[in-house]
Amino acid sequence: MSQIEKRDTGPDDEISVENITVKGRTSSENQHAISKVEIQLAAAYVSDAQYNRNILFDRSPEGIRLYRLYNHWGLLSITYIFIFVDLALAIFEEPAVVPLPIWATSLVEFLCLLAFTGRLIHFAKVIPRKSFWKDAKNICIIVTILLTLVDMIIYGSLKVTGYYGDRWSRVLRPLFLVNITESRQVRRAFRSIRNTLPQILYVFLLFIFSVLMFSLMALKLFGKRNYLTIEGKPYFTNYLEVIFNLYVLVTTANSPDVMMPAYNNNTWFSIFFILYIIINTYVFMSVFLAVIYNNYKKHLKEEVKQLVSVKRHKMVKAFKVLQVCEGNEYIVRQSHWNQLVKMVQPSISNAYRELLWSVSDDEQKGYIGKVAFVQLADLLNIRVITTKARIHPLQTWLPDLYHSAGSRLIHKMVQHKGFVYAYDLIILINAVFIGLDEENAIIAYAEWVFLGLYLVEISLKLYTYEPRLFFAKHQFWNWFDTIIIIAALVATIVTSVLRSSGGYNSQQVLDIVFILRVLRLIRIVDSIKRFRSIINTLINIGPTMLTFGQLVVVVYYIFAIIGMEIFKYKIKSYSPDSTDPESEFCGNILLKDSKFANYKYCKNNFNNIVSSFILLLELTVVNQWHDILLKQNGFTMVTHISARLYFIIFHIVVVIIILNIFIAFILEAFFVEYTVEKSNVQTSIEKKIQELQLGIQEDQLEGTLCNDMETPDNDLGPTENTKVKPTLIFEIASKRYRTADALLQRIFQADLSPDDEGSPMHESDEDSLPADFNFQNPAFDSV
Amino acid sequence: MSQIEKRDTGPDDEISVENITVKGRTSSENQHAISKVEIQLAAAYVSDAQYNRNILFDRSPEGIRLYRLYNHWGLLSITYIFIFVDLALAIFEEPAVVPLPIWATSLVEFLCLLAFTGRLIHFAKVIPRKSFWKDAKNICIIVTILLTLVDMIIYGSLKVTGYYGDRWSRVLRPLFLVNITESRQVRRAFRSIRNTLPQILYVFLLFIFSVLMFSLMALKLFGKRNYLTIEGKPYFTNYLEVIFNLYVLVTTANSPDVMMPAYNNNTWFSIFFILYIIINTYVFMSVFLAVIYNNYKKHLKEEVKQLVSVKRHKMVKAFKVLQVCEGNEYIVRQSHWNQLVKMVQPSISNAYRELLWSVSDDEQKGYIGKVAFVQLADLLNIRVITTKARIHPLQTWLPDLYHSAGSRLIHKMVQHKGFVYAYDLIILINAVFIGLDEENAIIAYAEWVFLGLYLVEISLKLYTYEPRLFFAKHQFWNWFDTIIIIAALVATIVTSVLRSSGGYNSQQVLDIVFILRVLRLIRIVDSIKRFRSIINTLINIGPTMLTFGQLVVVVYYIFAIIGMEIFKYKIKSYSPDSTDPESEFCGNILLKDSKFANYKYCKNNFNNIVSSFILLLELTVVNQWHDILLKQNGFTMVTHISARLYFIIFHIVVVIIILNIFIAFILEAFFVEYTVEKSNVQTSIEKKIQELQLGIQEDQLEGTLCNDMETPDNDLGPTENTKVKPTLIFEIASKRYRTADALLQRIFQADLSPDDEGSPMHESDEDSLPADFNFQNPAFDSV
Repeated sequence: MSQIEKRDTGPDDEISVENITVKGRTSSENQHAISKVEIQLAAAYVSDAQYNRNILFDRSPEGIRLYRLYNHWGLLSITYIFIFVDLALAIFEEPAVVPLPIWATSLVEFLCLLAFTGRLIHFAKVIPRKSFWKDAKNICIIVTILLTLVDMIIYGSLKVTGYYGDRWSRVLRPLFLVNITESRQVRRAFRSIRNTLPQILYVFLLFIFSVLMFSLMALKLFGKRNYLTIEGKPYFTNYLEVIFNLYVLVTTANSPDVMMPAYNNNTWFSIFFILYIIINTYVFMSVFLAVIYNNYKKHLKEEVKQLVSVKRHKMVKAFKVLQVCEGNEYIVRQSHWNQLVKMVQPSISNAYRELLWSVSDDEQKGYIGKVAFVQLADLLNIRVITTKARIHPLQTWLPDLYHSAGSRLIHKMVQHKGFVYAYDLIILINAVFIGLDEENAIIAYAEWVFLGLYLVEISLKLYTYEPRLFFAKHQFWNWFDTIIIIAALVATIVTSVLRSSGGYNSQQVLDIVFILRVLRLIRIVDSIKRFRSIINTLINIGPTMLTFGQLVVVVYYIFAIIGMEIFKYKIKSYSPDSTDPESEFCGNILLKDSKFANYKYCKNNFNNIVSSFILLLELTVVNQWHDILLKQNGFTMVTHISARLYFIIFHIVVVIIILNIFIAFILEAFFVEYTVEKSNVQTSIEKKIQELQLGIQEDQLEGTLCNDMETPDNDLGPTENTKVKPTLIFEIASKRYRTADALLQRIFQADLSPDDEGSPMHESDEDSLPADFNFQNPAFDSV
Repeated sequence: MSQIEKRDTGPDDEISVENITVKGRTSSENQHAISKVEIQLAAAYVSDAQYNRNILFDRSPEGIRLYRLYNHWGLLSITYIFIFVDLALAIFEEPAVVPLPIWATSLVEFLCLLAFTGRLIHFAKVIPRKSFWKDAKNICIIVTILLTLVDMIIYGSLKVTGYYGDRWSRVLRPLFLVNITESRQVRRAFRSIRNTLPQILYVFLLFIFSVLMFSLMALKLFGKRNYLTIEGKPYFTNYLEVIFNLYVLVTTANSPDVMMPAYNNNTWFSIFFILYIIINTYVFMSVFLAVIYNNYKKHLKEEVKQLVSVKRHKMVKAFKVLQVCEGNEYIVRQSHWNQLVKMVQPSISNAYRELLWSVSDDEQKGYIGKVAFVQLADLLNIRVITTKARIHPLQTWLPDLYHSAGSRLIHKMVQHKGFVYAYDLIILINAVFIGLDEENAIIAYAEWVFLGLYLVEISLKLYTYEPRLFFAKHQFWNWFDTIIIIAALVATIVTSVLRSSGGYNSQQVLDIVFILRVLRLIRIVDSIKRFRSIINTLINIGPTMLTFGQLVVVVYYIFAIIGMEIFKYKIKSYSPDSTDPESEFCGNILLKDSKFANYKYCKNNFNNIVSSFILLLELTVVNQWHDILLKQNGFTMVTHISARLYFIIFHIVVVIIILNIFIAFILEAFFVEYTVEKSNVQTSIEKKIQELQLGIQEDQLEGTLCNDMETPDNDLGPTENTKVKPTLIFEIASKRYRTADALLQRIFQADLSPDDEGSPMHESDEDSLPADFNFQNPAFDSV
């Protein structure tokens, strides 16, 4: 505890303390004896660097243990489960999808709060007390927990005494998702948005000014002419109404309806609307994208720069813990390095660890300097596939049969391009059959034929290729094929058994069969190289898209909770075959004969969290939101005209800001895929793999998997091969990233200053770092 | 003619011919006597470089004269007028806005064709015959003219014999706009699109594959469940119908209607649509933008690189014509340079020409080398505002009054920030008054007050600032204000005279008054600096947006002509107060009770070119196109289901391709505005202006115009000023561009190879240039 106290004075102080310890060791006991605690400390630093964590933890053995526990995947998962449960409570609370009694949901929520408190106390024990209270993130969690408790008590007592109460604190729940330490990317995304806001604001004001000007003009031009809308209402007579209609026109949702009354009366009036659409819909919306794209890129670049510098700082700290003095320089010995890597990533194989060492220790000196050591975090983040070169089991069990002429013909056939083309053709024919009516007996029979053909394909491939290679972790399409086909087989058998036995015909099982059949067709995409590259890019940006997913969930959740409070039960939905006369107007007489009811939109309501989310998605897509949801129909009709504000704010936040950031991100990611080459670290690993002849040649990889396993001279058996074949094969999954941060760093790598990238970090660098990294510290800064 | 023959052998030959001439002159007559013809030749080259023309013209005196005539603005304008007339013929031809007899339109079209032929013959006389026939652009024009003639003859004879004929060649008319030599930007835009197509195609195929897969799944999932759409039709039972509906969902136009039947029956089905929207609407549409943005940028960059190299090549040619040998180097004398600049740009003032010379001849040697000479084209393209420092006329006429204490107080007041703020406030109050009901007597009176206030403002400014400076060409806002206010004054007086005299109240005049009043409010934008910078960026990209305008007109025109042939008179429009019972269903019984008729969309038809254009704009905005225009309603109802093809192709061409290129362009332009600094040439001019003390200080420019004219020490009269005040003031309109090409070159300037940018062009460069510039010659290459 005294040690923690000591470090409360701040990072500068802390570094001096560390320096003293380091110096102490290197001078007194130059025996290279580095204790397990020190390895653990270094491992914590490396792990922080690898995952871009930036937490100032207590360096006592107890503190390190606590910190390692804090970062343990099990605890993390439990935390995420509690967050998920907390958010999912909205399903069971009034207005509920599945109603549960208040005591049940309250109890679960209370448990969640306990879990969050526990996590927070754990965190408080890990970091110095001063840092803890400085961090707005922690304050935010505490305040949220307290507010939730207060709300629960008030709500409970109101309910007990029979009064009506609002569970307003539910809006705060997404804050847990945002402020738990591990949601770094979401916080960064929010920070990017916040930093972009001032720039957006000016464009937005100009845009609003333009809308107001056009509205004023429209009012003056059309207001006096007694035109009528198709609903027979006066056209453009109320200024607020005009503004609202023209704002909606920007979203294109009421085009061309809003123009028709004027246009029908005078063709020239169309000029007004054409100008409006060009200026506001096209130019301004593009300008929004441009401004957001530029600023988002700029801010993200800054953040990533900081990430990189913090990462280096952590690695230098780890180096200082492990360093021993050798001649004039500080170095880290291979034995310590090995212990370190084992502790940081226990899952790593010995062979791969040796490969990494040989990349770092290029000259095989048995020790590495600071420059090579700092690379480690990046090295560990590169996903390398380790494949053992195995012999096909049949080759061992039935060597004669496996090497017979017929067997070799099969191998050749399966490896031939024609085999792939033949199956692509089969898939196409299958697609046609799927499109046909499956009630027909021939078609139903054909399904069995196709299933058989696919099973034959998989069997042949398993016969030709080593099964463990075929089902290696990274063989996405093999897994995909096999699972889909076996599932389809099972489902098809189940359906026919059910059908033949009791005549029972479950639509659900049939649905699954249909979906599986169609999914099977996707495989054809993988056969065409250009398609594969586009899909790979999409898969690459997948993890970061998940960040946007979280962002959208947070925003949707808040809007959904508020929406439910405002609009719940205003509109009722009925099952489609309901005979209730109220189903004609969604259970609200105000909606009688409205478009909303006529279009059967009753299910678009805020009566539970699921339909709220779906409704919000419909609003994101924008179409129909004016007429159906807002105008004289829908939600404004059953509440008040000011309900429009809710929907307009939603539009600005989600459509104008978040969607544009999403587009900006995809633009940037594709731009990178088109231009940027592999990173330096990747190249150096690849070079080493090549040097050590552990790799698969790129051109051999082009075709199907493991062509090189069965080259003719290998068929005679491995003993006849003069060149010793490596038992392990490494292959860089060059375009996959372990973390979303890795992709971001790659995106901006080209723009990072070269001295950050390439040059070693000098002693002085480390001392100068904390100054600026406390200033805008990404992890300590809260949303 | 023999000279032309000689040059037919190609550019390599041509250069050797030129070299001989040049050498001949420099060796035999080293008297620096350069004939007028040679100056004209050089001027033609410089002018070509300035406007990025790349035409290989005949170098005989006669040829140069013809070429200069060919590029004369008068002839150009006439050509454009003929193109405009040719395109505008669609207004008068069947189906016509203003029907004219066939003989009249045919006659006009024939005249247009004659004009185009004349222009082409002129062009053929200018360039070598071989190049003429090599140029696909010329072939295209000839073929178009011939096809049009054939079509006119066939149509005429069919009409005479009473048969029905199509004027199909009208589709070809936009080709004249594209292929006339001066529409370089439009051709470049088309070329960019063509080059981007292969990349788009792969994404498009993948996208279509995804749509087909989802459609198949939807067919299997929903087809058998006997769901009904709100029109009571079967839901998702026909595969083609499903594909169409889901394609439309990508445009968001039928959301959420297309989902409702499934969603109403089972909440889980919404997952299908959510996935579909995320994958196809959001991800794929963003990928389209990303691919188009990247490729467009790449191709445009290539083209601009070529432009720059061709420009340099032309300038080197001009240099070679004017060069004389001085010691060891070739130089151009100031006298020749002066003649050249006078010929290239007669409008330029002597003072400005001297400024340009002093920029080029930095060391005042009286001659310049090749490096400095090559700059000339860029120098001429920089828009520099030449302002004469004049004395206010009142100062001359009434010096005592003008320098009195009261007068100086007025000057101070007008120049004070508060003056601007006060008028901003007045504008805001005016805005409120405009919004109020103008029938009210007080409001009507207030209008006179505001008009008076604005007049006072203009008078005060004219009193304070020199009128000729106040109304200088570049003082956009001064002109804007004055014109708007005087027009409003005139219109208001006319209205009140009309009203008081005969009670006659022309709505048109009133409309104009209203619009002018509202436009007056725009001025407030100029007061806020951040708004000004956004608007400046928009104004800067204006000229290039016009290129997109031409592009859109070309595409719209083609679609409009085809659309008119297919759909004309299928739907009739009636005036809104028509009592004709047929107006209920747009004159086509098939549309009875259809949404199309109920929404009063009858005027959305292809019955003339104007309504076709408006309809196509509505289709570009996308909303409602499915339900109203295509589905079981609208155009497919009155023709055939395959009419959808027309609309889908239009969507792909305009919305997916052209709109995305437009967005890409705005993105790039804003990116440049945010990052790129002034070009080198601009900086060197500015430096020179500063050196020669001819400029206005930047900080003085910040405020209102000409603050520096009336600094206190100047008020005592110009004679008392010790420092000699320049009579001319130059100011770089740094962010305005004379040509769209200049903006493009600035956009990609940062990426152009620095040796292209900075270093001089060696002799060898010129010889190596033609090889690659004939290969992908921007001007000789046709669309």
